[in-house]
Amino acid sequence: MDKDFLLQTETAKKLFHEQAENLPIIDYHCHLSPQEIAEDHRFNSITELWLGGDHYKWRAMRSNGVEEKYITGDASDWEKFQKWAETMPYCMRNPLYHWTHLELRTAFGINKLLNPNTAREIFDECNEKLKQPEFSARGLMRRYNVEVVCTTDDPADDLKYHIATRYSDFETKVLPTWRPDKAMAIDNPIAYRAYVEQLSAAANKTIRSYSDLLEALQIRHDFFNSVGCRLSDHGVNEFYADNYTESEISNIFLNVMDGKLPTEKEVRKFRSALLLEGGRMDARSGWTQQFHYGPMRNNNTRMFMKLGPDTGYDSIGTFNTSEAMSRFLDHLDSEGNLAKTILYCINPSDNEMIATMIGNFQEGPTPGKIQFGSGWWFNDQLDGMERQMNALSVLGLLSRFVGMLTDSRSFLSYPRHEYFRRCLCNLIGQDVEDGKLPAEEMPFIEQMVRDISYYNAKRYFKF
Amino acid sequence: MDKDFLLQTETAKKLFHEQAENLPIIDYHCHLSPQEIAEDHRFNSITELWLGGDHYKWRAMRSNGVEEKYITGDASDWEKFQKWAETMPYCMRNPLYHWTHLELRTAFGINKLLNPNTAREIFDECNEKLKQPEFSARGLMRRYNVEVVCTTDDPADDLKYHIATRYSDFETKVLPTWRPDKAMAIDNPIAYRAYVEQLSAAANKTIRSYSDLLEALQIRHDFFNSVGCRLSDHGVNEFYADNYTESEISNIFLNVMDGKLPTEKEVRKFRSALLLEGGRMDARSGWTQQFHYGPMRNNNTRMFMKLGPDTGYDSIGTFNTSEAMSRFLDHLDSEGNLAKTILYCINPSDNEMIATMIGNFQEGPTPGKIQFGSGWWFNDQLDGMERQMNALSVLGLLSRFVGMLTDSRSFLSYPRHEYFRRCLCNLIGQDVEDGKLPAEEMPFIEQMVRDISYYNAKRYFKF
Amino acid sequence: MDKDFLLQTETAKKLFHEQAENLPIIDYHCHLSPQEIAEDHRFNSITELWLGGDHYKWRAMRSNGVEEKYITGDASDWEKFQKWAETMPYCMRNPLYHWTHLELRTAFGINKLLNPNTAREIFDECNEKLKQPEFSARGLMRRYNVEVVCTTDDPADDLKYHIATRYSDFETKVLPTWRPDKAMAIDNPIAYRAYVEQLSAAANKTIRSYSDLLEALQIRHDFFNSVGCRLSDHGVNEFYADNYTESEISNIFLNVMDGKLPTEKEVRKFRSALLLEGGRMDARSGWTQQFHYGPMRNNNTRMFMKLGPDTGYDSIGTFNTSEAMSRFLDHLDSEGNLAKTILYCINPSDNEMIATMIGNFQEGPTPGKIQFGSGWWFNDQLDGMERQMNALSVLGLLSRFVGMLTDSRSFLSYPRHEYFRRCLCNLIGQDVEDGKLPAEEMPFIEQMVRDISYYNAKRYFKF
Repeated sequence: MDKDFLLQTETAKKLFHEQAENLPIIDYHCHLSPQEIAEDHRFNSITELWLGGDHYKWRAMRSNGVEEKYITGDASDWEKFQKWAETMPYCMRNPLYHWTHLELRTAFGINKLLNPNTAREIFDECNEKLKQPEFSARGLMRRYNVEVVCTTDDPADDLKYHIATRYSDFETKVLPTWRPDKAMAIDNPIAYRAYVEQLSAAANKTIRSYSDLLEALQIRHDFFNSVGCRLSDHGVNEFYADNYTESEISNIFLNVMDGKLPTEKEVRKFRSALLLEGGRMDARSGWTQQFHYGPMRNNNTRMFMKLGPDTGYDSIGTFNTSEAMSRFLDHLDSEGNLAKTILYCINPSDNEMIATMIGNFQEGPTPGKIQFGSGWWFNDQLDGMERQMNALSVLGLLSRFVGMLTDSRSFLSYPRHEYFRRCLCNLIGQDVEDGKLPAEEMPFIEQMVRDISYYNAKRYFKF
Repeated sequence: MDKDFLLQTETAKKLFHEQAENLPIIDYHCHLSPQEIAEDHRFNSITELWLGGDHYKWRAMRSNGVEEKYITGDASDWEKFQKWAETMPYCMRNPLYHWTHLELRTAFGINKLLNPNTAREIFDECNEKLKQPEFSARGLMRRYNVEVVCTTDDPADDLKYHIATRYSDFETKVLPTWRPDKAMAIDNPIAYRAYVEQLSAAANKTIRSYSDLLEALQIRHDFFNSVGCRLSDHGVNEFYADNYTESEISNIFLNVMDGKLPTEKEVRKFRSALLLEGGRMDARSGWTQQFHYGPMRNNNTRMFMKLGPDTGYDSIGTFNTSEAMSRFLDHLDSEGNLAKTILYCINPSDNEMIATMIGNFQEGPTPGKIQFGSGWWFNDQLDGMERQMNALSVLGLLSRFVGMLTDSRSFLSYPRHEYFRRCLCNLIGQDVEDGKLPAEEMPFIEQMVRDISYYNAKRYFKF
Repeated sequence: MDKDFLLQTETAKKLFHEQAENLPIIDYHCHLSPQEIAEDHRFNSITELWLGGDHYKWRAMRSNGVEEKYITGDASDWEKFQKWAETMPYCMRNPLYHWTHLELRTAFGINKLLNPNTAREIFDECNEKLKQPEFSARGLMRRYNVEVVCTTDDPADDLKYHIATRYSDFETKVLPTWRPDKAMAIDNPIAYRAYVEQLSAAANKTIRSYSDLLEALQIRHDFFNSVGCRLSDHGVNEFYADNYTESEISNIFLNVMDGKLPTEKEVRKFRSALLLEGGRMDARSGWTQQFHYGPMRNNNTRMFMKLGPDTGYDSIGTFNTSEAMSRFLDHLDSEGNLAKTILYCINPSDNEMIATMIGNFQEGPTPGKIQFGSGWWFNDQLDGMERQMNALSVLGLLSRFVGMLTDSRSFLSYPRHEYFRRCLCNLIGQDVEDGKLPAEEMPFIEQMVRDISYYNAKRYFKF
């Protein structure tokens, strides 16, 4: 894992080192804690940073036969780290093996390989360094030259940490993202009613009807916009594009607020309506809407009861949602309300469907108006990124791709941008050396690498 | 893109240049205009040839942010070409980049790369050459050594252009293909009734009932056969194999002719019946039936209203149709009516399903009786062709593959056969050099390359 | 196909020859005849061994245009072999080409390539060798250093051949596998009733009710356990996880025993219930449960009538069963009854779904408790094995993979383990030479190769 890691040709090396390596990072989708940024959080230990919430690592440890005590249980920081170090060699060929060592190298300057023999010295060295101020939340973001990050936030959130960060002297732009999943979740009427009250308080607007709900959401949408939000995001299993009437939706809303469990059909109708309304708000504000679709979540009931969601029990779904996706986008397009859009799929078998779906709604003057999002979640690794870029290349325009994002909860995940850029340069460099791309057009090829690494996102999102 | 373009090993080069390069082309499926062939059409400009109807290029331009005016609008030929030239570098890694330059090189002898700097001189040079007689429709077919082309024709078509071409001195065999999609389209009763009248006139047979319809179709089928047709083709979303009775179908037909909208179930039953009848006709005539299945068409309603179908708003569907496909083929096979068959899928996730489906109905004495068609539409590029050939190789017999077709509307698309042959030779050459295929069997390997490039199709279709 | 066949790097060669090549074989899933092992069967001819029941070869011959007479018909051994030899070159790039020559080389010491010119001498030489005692069933297993084989057996089987083999001096452990497919097959009440009678006799237990059925199955399960069985196996199209009550299942059972055809819904409920009961039995016994899911079987009715099942008319299905799979596993896990489990998919488009599904139910202390089974059936070839291992690598832990099995009906299939090990060493060797895996960790990498080739299975199954 030296300086030419993943760069298998001379052209790839030149492209990476001369064009991509030193560009700033625009991390337009992540799950960092705005509070930790605002307060410039200091980390107690590498265990907190690495194993405090990273369900990728938890899954790997469980697959390696580690007992839960050492994963999410009450074992000590050192014991947990030790179990992780034991698991590390067993992760060979899994992206965690590369991520971990890239993080050690780029954040801590540690070039040793993590394994049971090196565990103690690496643990101690990391923890020693974490005491230094440049290893705070902001320190890490500075180290990685992060220009913009977009967090993921609920419409009812007051965004006070974003505002505080904005008025501090922090060089990185920290912007919120509008993620209204809870406003869609009418399948649990009790939780929904509580959420509507929260939203009502945040918007300072009584919500008695569906149209009140829309008004409240619009108030919050405007507020998010005022704090610099330029993106929405939706975590959905499937797309929804059922037919409905406004009065149906109004009734469904009232019934749910009255505590009645909606039918599956009602849930679909309601989501169909609210997805459209959200799309309209985004279009009016000139935002970009994102859709992360397709996972099967919380498959393990026993562990869900113990640990809750996002703890490593999700997997790749097989939803057949292309028709609803098409109808949803078409509906907005027909009204003139189709915002810039990024579609992320979790099942790589859908790559080709998505890479051609985006072509149905492209139009000038925005290049790459509809985007096929970078390899998401389980696909956020070499093979997944390559498949996404190859599908986009042959079925659309790679050159207009807005590129990488971390989607991460960790301040140590920025090397994934480096990983992505290496992968990109390697693909393109290989093509040049294979004669599939013309060396005579090297200036354009270099521009393409810079664009996908940084400039496309800068121009597309207009933060 | 020199003479060894895409040929990454010495064996690949030898195979291509010595075995494949100079064989004639049998283009057994395309969408060329029979009229333009009959009249030996002359092209006004490279814009007409390239941008007059090529929705692949239109999609790329839209993805690049070009406004519709310069794509299908009233901009001048030069303006449109200029926008295409601007888009060209942004198409790197998309097959259009290779297609375009292969066409420039092989048709016009232009080795320059198209980009904004070279746009004017290339535009002028192409247009100058297009004035020469050897750049007519037939001239281009001669240039590419095209032995046979099969166009795509409606059963009601009088085939007068095919007949005219046949009695001219044109060396290329130009044959019709039976494509009865309109005879299946009962979901629009008004259009259907009009179509039945057209068919009735063509067959010189009054159509009052479903059995009249079948008779009329049989009359036309016989007529197509007499003009040299040896292939049918079906553009379907899914396969249909619902149970039905003859009287049900008769009633559905009468109702539709009376202007009643059929239910979805009735549409499926009717299509199930007509697909079988078509299969029987093909079997009796010794034809080959083709099925192009799986796209989602006309996703963009707004643009469909403006531009109609086949304008770049189609994409890869996710129909789950394997069971109906199996039942349909089994039904014909059980009757002894299963004609030679080619199955084309648009979703590469179906490659393995198809590559094994064909094995269910293979039987002597016809080698490769049931074929997995070459990478279709969005898959008609390097990655798609390789995936199709690799799936066919490991799950069936690549050696019996009837190979490439252009599926194109353009007289400039023949270099796709060259592209395919390069890809084929590269795959096989690589295997030889990797020791996966034995160099001792080189004479057979050479034969296999010739067969897939040309001879398999010649023997299979018996034009 | 020399000693470095498929090994494209020096590291790959070293790994294979020094770590993997000489390890014994644990073939934990196959379809060998226990009788032929017990009786140490002698083979009359290479035609019996190769073409007597191998529907892979039959499919290839049919695809090559060979008439059925020479495949399953009454042609002589030599004629059939001759047709196979003619087909052989046409199988280039199909795994049969490699399998065949690996078998010739490793079993018979024949390094010639099979084709029409060599057919006679190879036929004669093989048949000559088959007369020697070391070419008996057991002789072949000794030759390939087979430590354990697990056959596939019905719960009603008396296992007399396993017992006989156990008490003979045969060095290879030959164990039964519990495959209760017939106990699930209530869709044919007549056959089902007959089967229940067989089961009743075997268990020495009258079966009048569903609970009697479960008791009888438990009796047999215990008996299988006493004969060394440590694995169950299920051949299913889909998974089943419908809700049901015990009384519903009892009634369905009684009705079926009375000869009533169950509805599709009843079939699903019954299978849901019995799958769970089977899972509980396996968990209580500490066995491993296997699921081979997803094929479409017997697609060709005409040939099914002539030849019956397993004759080469099956193909890859497109069942969407991920949700039922998750619910089934979750149900057992919630009860604390989730046994070690291996999931095999037949459609490689499901690879990523499966490779992430297993992660939902991993837990210590068993490393790799839930396994993604090696490339199955149509995927049991280089491309399929690589895709399975790559998906498992990036989405799980390759290091904990229990590796290869033959799934074969033939005593000549053991070179598939060699093929797999070559493929594995090549993948890993390539990664090391590309700098994706660290050469400093070579001792661990070597251990990983040994583990996947042999030791993981040994530790996992505890035969």
